[in-house]
Parts: sequence; C-alpha cells; structure tokens
Amino acid sequence: MKKKIAIIGAGPSGLAQLRAFASAAPKAEIPEIVCFEKQRNWGGLWNYTWRTGLDEFGEPVHGSMYRYLWSNGPKEGLEFADYTFEEHFGKQIASYPPRAVLFDYIEGRVKKAGVRPWIRFSSVVRYVTWSPETRRFTVLVQDLPNDRSYSEEFDHVIVASGHFSTPNVPEFPGFDTFNGRILHAHDFRDAREFVGQDILIVGTSYSAEDIGSQCWKYGCKSVTVSHRTQAMGFKWPANWKEVPLLTKVEGNVATFTDGSTATVNAIILCTGYKHHFPFMPDDLRLRTANRLATADLYKGVAYVHNPALFYLGMQDQWYTFNMFDAQAWWVRDVILGRIKLPASKNDLIADVEKRVAAEDAGEDSYDAIRYQGNYIKELIAETDYPSFDVDGADEAFFQWKKHKIKDIMAFRDNSYRSVMTGTMAPKHHTPWKDALDDTMQSYLRN
Amino acid sequence: MKKKIAIIGAGPSGLAQLRAFASAAPKAEIPEIVCFEKQRNWGGLWNYTWRTGLDEFGEPVHGSMYRYLWSNGPKEGLEFADYTFEEHFGKQIASYPPRAVLFDYIEGRVKKAGVRPWIRFSSVVRYVTWSPETRRFTVLVQDLPNDRSYSEEFDHVIVASGHFSTPNVPEFPGFDTFNGRILHAHDFRDAREFVGQDILIVGTSYSAEDIGSQCWKYGCKSVTVSHRTQAMGFKWPANWKEVPLLTKVEGNVATFTDGSTATVNAIILCTGYKHHFPFMPDDLRLRTANRLATADLYKGVAYVHNPALFYLGMQDQWYTFNMFDAQAWWVRDVILGRIKLPASKNDLIADVEKRVAAEDAGEDSYDAIRYQGNYIKELIAETDYPSFDVDGADEAFFQWKKHKIKDIMAFRDNSYRSVMTGTMAPKHHTPWKDALDDTMQSYLRN
Repeated sequence: MKKKIAIIGAGPSGLAQLRAFASAAPKAEIPEIVCFEKQRNWGGLWNYTWRTGLDEFGEPVHGSMYRYLWSNGPKEGLEFADYTFEEHFGKQIASYPPRAVLFDYIEGRVKKAGVRPWIRFSSVVRYVTWSPETRRFTVLVQDLPNDRSYSEEFDHVIVASGHFSTPNVPEFPGFDTFNGRILHAHDFRDAREFVGQDILIVGTSYSAEDIGSQCWKYGCKSVTVSHRTQAMGFKWPANWKEVPLLTKVEGNVATFTDGSTATVNAIILCTGYKHHFPFMPDDLRLRTANRLATADLYKGVAYVHNPALFYLGMQDQWYTFNMFDAQAWWVRDVILGRIKLPASKNDLIADVEKRVAAEDAGEDSYDAIRYQGNYIKELIAETDYPSFDVDGADEAFFQWKKHKIKDIMAFRDNSYRSVMTGTMAPKHHTPWKDALDDTMQSYLRN
Repeated sequence: MKKKIAIIGAGPSGLAQLRAFASAAPKAEIPEIVCFEKQRNWGGLWNYTWRTGLDEFGEPVHGSMYRYLWSNGPKEGLEFADYTFEEHFGKQIASYPPRAVLFDYIEGRVKKAGVRPWIRFSSVVRYVTWSPETRRFTVLVQDLPNDRSYSEEFDHVIVASGHFSTPNVPEFPGFDTFNGRILHAHDFRDAREFVGQDILIVGTSYSAEDIGSQCWKYGCKSVTVSHRTQAMGFKWPANWKEVPLLTKVEGNVATFTDGSTATVNAIILCTGYKHHFPFMPDDLRLRTANRLATADLYKGVAYVHNPALFYLGMQDQWYTFNMFDAQAWWVRDVILGRIKLPASKNDLIADVEKRVAAEDAGEDSYDAIRYQGNYIKELIAETDYPSFDVDGADEAFFQWKKHKIKDIMAFRDNSYRSVMTGTMAPKHHTPWKDALDDTMQSYLRN
C-alpha cells in the first residue's frame, strides 16, 4: 500500500517539501501527499494580510508580515539552487527584494512544479495523535469554509508551520493603563500608522531593527529602543536612541532602568516568537529554544522520540529558503527509503547533542553563519539537491554584516554575487531610505 | 457513583452555574464540578486585559473589554436576585456602573459562595468528544503554565464560553493598502489612542455606538459611522456623522455607496461576533445566529442533539447576569434530577420551533425585551431562584431606550429603581460625558 504523508503548512518550508517530492516523481513512486494550509493561499509569512489577531474564521492570524518590508538579508543567501532569481525574473535583480518580489519568486517555483493540487487550503489541523499499534498518525482537520471536521490517517507527519507566528508578549508595569496602542511586532502592518508619533520599541531582534527603521523611513517623530542586555549599537539617525530596559509606564511616560524617561505614543514589542504547536500532543510536541541546534531533532528534522514525525525550518535562521530545501530533500529521501535513520534512539539523541555542542563552541555570529552553512552542506551531500557554493553564500552574509555596521540605513543599497549563477546583482535604482514604493513593478525597473 | 460536571468558562455564565450548584449544596448532594477557565482570573469579558490578538500562552485573547467602559444598559436590568447591589456595596449605587464596579459586584457574589476551588485557571479546553457507549464526554485540556495536556471524563458538559470574543471581520476593497490601523472592536482598548484622529466606524451595533461615543468623549477629531441597512439615528454631536455602507478605501480616503468620501486615520470594525467553539466536534457544536431564540437549544440551554450537553448565555441579550442565573439554576436542576427533560427529541425540537416563532412574531425591540423577560420568568418559575419583578426590569429597559433617544450622550445620567430592593438609584455625581475617571473609587463617591 502506498504511504501517505501529511505536511502541515504551505509556507516556504512546506512548499520546499512539496517541491522535493515533485522533483522525485518522474523517476520514483512517491507517496500520497496532503498539505494542510490554514490560509487561503500559499506562501506562509510571505502571504501578506491586513488582518491581525483572529482571521475571518476566528483562527489566529498566521501572518507577521508588514507592508514595505524588504528582505533584511541579501537574496544571495537564500536563493534556491534549483530555481534561480534569473530563471524566474529573466534577469538578475538587486539584492534586497521587497516582500512582493520574494513572494513571486517562491510562488514561481511551485507553480512550475504543479504541486498546488496537493494542498487543502483554509484547512487547519486541530490535533494529531499517534497510534503505537497501527504505527500511523491520525490528523484531525477543520475545513474552515465548510465548518466541518474530519480525521485522516498518515504514515508520516511533517510539521512546517513555522515559528514566527505566535508572539512572545511580556508585560511591564503600567501596560494596563497606558494611553496608546501596545502591540507586538506580529500585529505591525503599516508604518504610516505611526507618522508623527514617538514610538517605543522593546527588544533588539531583527524585528526591532527593521520595524524601527520602517517607522523612521516613513516619518515617525522619534524611535526609542529599549534593550535588556545590550544595545544594537548601529549608527542610528539623530531622532533614534537606545535605552536600557523598560521598568514601567505611567500614562504615556515610559521609565527605563537608568532612570531616564520618554513620552511615547505607541509601544511596539519586538520580543520574539514562540515555537507553538497547539495541535500536537505532549509526546509529539517539539519544545525547543530558538537556536541553530534545535532540541530533539535528529539532523535538525527527525523527531527523536518518534522519527516518523519531522519538523522543518524550526532552527533560528541565517539561511532560510535553501536551508528548508536541504531539509525537505533529506526528509523526502528518508521517507522514500533512500536514507536510513539510525535504529537506536540513543544514536538519534547523540546526534542532537553533538550539534548543540558544536553550536555552543562557536564564538560569534560569523561562526554561527559558518555553522549553519556547514549544516546545509551536510544535508545536501546526502541527496540530489543541486550542490552550490555554500562558502560563497556565507561570504555574502559576512559582507552584509559589515555593510550594516557601516550604515544601517543604507546596507540594502549594496549588491552581491549569486553563488548559483555567478552573476553580480545590479545596484538598485533608488536608495532604500528614499524608495517608498515597494511594488514589484518598481523594484524590477533596473 | 457521583456525577461529574465540566463547565467551560468562568465568566458571568460559568460563575452563575457555580453559584447555582453552591446554593444547592447545603441541602442536596451535588456532583463533582470542574470549571475550566482559559484566563488567569474569573470574570470573563469583565476581566480587563491590555492584551490583544494572542495572549502570553499564544492562545486567542478572550477579552473584548476596553478601558472607560460603563454599562450600556441600566444595572436594574441585570441585578442578581440573590445578591443585590445594596448587599454588595452597602448602599444603592448609580445606574450605569463602569467595568471595575461591575467586576467587583460579580466577584463579590462568587467569593461569598466559595466556589473558586472548583476552577482550574489558565486551562484551555482543546477538544470535547462524546462516547455513545459510556454516555460520557471526554474533555481534552491544556494546562497552559505547565505546558501539559490531559483528558478527563464527565457526565455533563456546560459550555459557558461566551459569544463576544471571536470577531466577525469583513474585508472591504483597499483594506490591504490602507495607511492606518484597521481593528475590530474586539481589539479596541483605549480611546486615547485616537485623540485628534478622524475615525471611521463600520457597523451600527452596541459596539459602534459605544466605541464611537468613547472616542468622542476622550477627544477624537471626528466620528464617521457607516451602516449597511439603517443609520442608528440618534442625535449625535456636531463632529459625528452617519453614512451608508463603505465601498472601498484608497490611501486614507474611504468612499461610501452614496459616493461621499471621508479621509480617516483609523477604521474600527464594529461588525459583531461569531458563536465560535473550535473545541467542539461537529456533532456537539452549536451553530446559531445571534438571536433571542437560539437554534438547537431546548429551553434555550439543552442541546437538542445531545441533551447531556448544555450551552449557557448563547442568546442575543437584553438581559444578562440574571438571565444567566435563570439558566444556570434550571440546568442545575436538570442535572440534579429535579427537572425532567422530554425523552423525545421531537419534543425538544418542537420547543425550539415554538420559541423561534414567538420571537419572530414580535414587532419591535419592546416586544423583544418582553420576550426575553418572559423567558426568564418561565425558567425561574421552575427552580428556587428568587422570584423578582421581571416586568419592572422590562420597564427599566423601556425607559433606557427612551433616554437614549432623548440624548445619546446623556442617557447614563439617569436613574432607575431596583426591582430587587425597591430602592431608587442615586443620580451620579458627574455627567457621563464629563466623567473621565472611571475608577470604582470615583464611581462610588455618591
């Protein structure tokens, strides 16, 4: 009997998995595949929605994407090895594409692969259980538009639901009486809401850096960023300051641990996301910190407590799309029987421990980039995913970090060389800080 | 063996159910009771939170409560018959209490009843199933702080999770490119966020009326309210206008079906709520419009397709707290065997049809108020809930409606007589429109 596979989520990771199976189909019998996607369309976080909180079906909104977002790392670090930007756009494009451009690129590959019929849209997975007797999973699904639930059995489940959708939202004293909007980055949509406002950002993650920069670019009055341990330390514009941790708010006045204060109109919590799998029971639910060597995943993907279950893309990320590819091809080959998992659980666990130790041995973010690059090399060496110059991609990340230090509001004006095609990206026609139009039409006008 | 009962939710309805069982306990053996409450505290919607979207555990925020809310109907229509405002506050108080005052009143009764140990807080019900073999329910629960799930069996389940927590959120053309905040009333928290802004409200429900009034009171620049079928038609302030349905937004310009436009900073969707029970399977899930005669509930509470299951407070509401009491006492007596349900499903269904026809026969909101008053009379006549002058409470609602027509920004300055104690409420010390301080301390200073 043909194996049956459930993929949860049709974002970049889930689509990579569909693409991986499609690419094997001409020469091998592939299993029956069902991909459950909560949203009406594919693309995961890249599928922009104006909605926040709960969606039209009362389900938590997946999207954390906001308007005007441009890639915050060079596209040369995320390019698909089997589908280049040049193949998709018919020419090389500049290095920091806006959301619409990246969505189009992701979509282009899977349209070509013809995998859309495998996806059941507007279908949310409510619960997954495992039967030791049948050695199969039962997936309970809610068909949202038809308000109907049903169960289906699978030999493997691949969780590809992402980990940047469930906000980590701390509380500070006085939040219950603050006279303005308090939001998490997850609910941020349009920087123009904050034109003329003094905004407080809590956190120093990518969200903090980028949402602050967006608000600055589109005309907020000032940006104050509060950090717990260390300031980001870039050379910020004049109306931007970094302060230590928030201790309280009273009315519209925020106070920080050094006793300084700021009067602010809005507070944006850039305090990270949770790995959140409410549809997984205790014995199947991944519990991990947001790090490069995730807990409990052999080779970063196979759940050590039940290796019929896989998680894709659950790592903290320098690499994204091509790392998801490396994982998806590898998981596909396990399922197709081309790669054998160790039979002993101890061996699975030992692999995880080795990865954790290797990550911990790194000293800085350059080591972290190399670590994740090496992980990709390791996986693609074991499958037929097209080999590429990962060291060259590492190098693009190194350059990117230096460009950010040089000028945080201009790093997106730089170009890098594709490690897939060898072509140098053109310089974008307008500096990022002046390019208010983020449409694909505008971006492709090189 | 002692029966075991699950109550889902510790808001006004769930607490009424706990109070009902507690009041029977001195003279009768009562079942084992477990109340599952998702929030950290009781009070349901009256438990204010600054959070929106997802909570600290990644679960949908239950609360739709906002700051500065005062009751939008006279307290004389919602008073508990077994615990009066005078008993709780030691004196009669004015007729439109702010949130904190009503929360204190609700809490006072259940503190006195000692029911808190029956409640498991921060515990969300993930799924309920029914076994025809054992004739019991299995309730799958997530203990949120301990990140642990477990199942437990019950003879009865009483769903008291409310129906003003899952927003109904329509989309209009151009929402994806609007340059400001779009929110549903569910996510509205502090009117001061909108000081100096031009706001557009979509809808004509209580939320529309009250959130518009809040924003006006706290200093927004203008209020534009868009209606689908009919304007609210009150005598609004000069900077308030009613317009027909929104057709599109372009940038910050909203266009309506009559071709008129308004430039707005924010759009607040007061478009109602959904009855939403993602934790109930198809065969147990209530599907009803928001009306006085709910679908599929015998006597408005017993689920006709499985009368071991009850739903409390699922009606559209003129009456609230004391109607939940009437229902809770009645459900308690069914469970205690004091009231017998008809054995035939046809009889259960016939009761629902009769109620639907009776509601449909009403011609205006006065008839609707009488209809719901009569429903309360019917239920309390069958239990030992203290009888009270429901006609007198109807009359308070009739007066309230007239006071709103007379002056929509001053109706809360009126007083009514308690039908429980016969005492006239004092006039509040400050007109509502000038009373910016909504604390309990301020309100009780008569």
